[in-house]
Amino acid sequence: MKVVRTISELRREITAFRSTDAEGRAVGFVPTMGYLHEGHASLLRRSAQENGLTVLSVFVNPIQFGPNEDLDKYPRNEERDLQVAVEAGADLVFMPSVVEMYPRPRVTTVAVTEVTDRLCGASRPGHFDGVATVVTKLFNIVQPDRAYFGLKDAQQIAVIERMTQDLNIPVEIVPCPIVREADGLAMSSRNVYLSAAEREQALVLSRSLSRAGEWIGEGLTADRIVARLKDEIGSVPLANIEYVEILTYPNLVPVAEGQPLIHIGDSLLIALAVRFGNTRLIDNRLLIPKEVGAELCSVK
Amino acid sequence: MKVVRTISELRREITAFRSTDAEGRAVGFVPTMGYLHEGHASLLRRSAQENGLTVLSVFVNPIQFGPNEDLDKYPRNEERDLQVAVEAGADLVFMPSVVEMYPRPRVTTVAVTEVTDRLCGASRPGHFDGVATVVTKLFNIVQPDRAYFGLKDAQQIAVIERMTQDLNIPVEIVPCPIVREADGLAMSSRNVYLSAAEREQALVLSRSLSRAGEWIGEGLTADRIVARLKDEIGSVPLANIEYVEILTYPNLVPVAEGQPLIHIGDSLLIALAVRFGNTRLIDNRLLIPKEVGAELCSVK
Repeated sequence: MKVVRTISELRREITAFRSTDAEGRAVGFVPTMGYLHEGHASLLRRSAQENGLTVLSVFVNPIQFGPNEDLDKYPRNEERDLQVAVEAGADLVFMPSVVEMYPRPRVTTVAVTEVTDRLCGASRPGHFDGVATVVTKLFNIVQPDRAYFGLKDAQQIAVIERMTQDLNIPVEIVPCPIVREADGLAMSSRNVYLSAAEREQALVLSRSLSRAGEWIGEGLTADRIVARLKDEIGSVPLANIEYVEILTYPNLVPVAEGQPLIHIGDSLLIALAVRFGNTRLIDNRLLIPKEVGAELCSVK
Repeated sequence: MKVVRTISELRREITAFRSTDAEGRAVGFVPTMGYLHEGHASLLRRSAQENGLTVLSVFVNPIQFGPNEDLDKYPRNEERDLQVAVEAGADLVFMPSVVEMYPRPRVTTVAVTEVTDRLCGASRPGHFDGVATVVTKLFNIVQPDRAYFGLKDAQQIAVIERMTQDLNIPVEIVPCPIVREADGLAMSSRNVYLSAAEREQALVLSRSLSRAGEWIGEGLTADRIVARLKDEIGSVPLANIEYVEILTYPNLVPVAEGQPLIHIGDSLLIALAVRFGNTRLIDNRLLIPKEVGAELCSVK
């Protein structure tokens, strides 16, 4: 595994791979903000299986953080990241500085509307412009055949899929399942912020999301299910709900009111953002119709 | 020369070229809105000289036209375009439909600020977002090594150069000199709209721009030169001035007031937009310092 810190080095390595790989194998790409956990490792392993070269980027992208967000204290551990990366099968790690990625005042923004209107897009203004812009930059730098993203950030995948289609970026976006701790907590670099009590109470998120499946089976409507989720999460003392929403996926529009979810033919996303102390956690459950108009099943 | 109308056909052709071109020659790209004239032909000839494959696109991009602009009556002549293209050395012509380029409601925009604040960016709100978005799409579709643009749209080149840098698009932007009719009128697809009287009076644009060179030599400041240009153009009965500005190039910021232009070390753009009847014409003169702090000379 090789570590590079400049765009020109990275391009040289990838060009060399493409020109010497006699089997014409593909380049897989896993963009991250580092502080890697098992969720990231699962993306790297999948990429290593499906491609001849797996590129990992580790870059805490300042332009996707709002002024009052956790850019400065976002956790970093380069040494451990490299260990996770090599064990998971990365071939090339790109760790640029902020100046390497933004060498001068940036005047260009990739802006995505509609799929960013709700969920994290509504509560973090400008966040997805920052994501779309840096992902476009990284795609142009790496020029991967496939890029791997975790479904924990389901809206992020919806944004990136739509952006790559709208801009004709020649890359296949591969959504990968959420990886959870043994007790159900969705893995996140931000989990490290949680106190023991917050960590314990945060289990309400995955627990209530899995109960939502039963409620759909009982024939409940979206607003009833959202109300039950809010009740259940709100009953936990340290939880501060930012949003709980049920939307179609990947277009992220609200579902028809009053209709039992079980009869809706679209894929559905039940998504939530909840603060525990200063730590903002997100989690979700993606449900796809087994057949149109029929029962929904959870994405694995 | 081959004509293709779909993105997938175009990609197939370019991939085939890249995989069979033993000399590893480059792909050159000339994006246009068609109704080709000698200016476009000069771009194609230059690309054909410098690359193994020259791709021309002909696409009247609806999203760069404002609601009251000339999208519907923008001149088109496919047959003549193909003749100009083959004579100038194009190898592959991409003529997509609007649906091929925008198959569903677009939610992604590439937006460029600052260099779009003045000139055509100020008088045509949204225009450069439309240009930046379609050029990003075309770059992703063609993946050229070099792309050729005419300096008549000097601000467009500044926008595209800045955008490709900010987004790390791996393409070299090649600016090419303005091509003029024998009497000095800058070539433009829109010249076809001009009545005989308008066509005659429009010569004031190139005539006054070339006099601006003398005025710089006389030690005049930007505001004095702008005033003289406006006087000269305004003296022509059919001319309606939209803007006359002198800015640094390529950053497009106003020059220091009160300083004779001849002593300014930056490259300078003298740019104007003037309406004759319903037809909006632009023209400009780009002056680069022969040496820093010394006399300016015109870009040829």
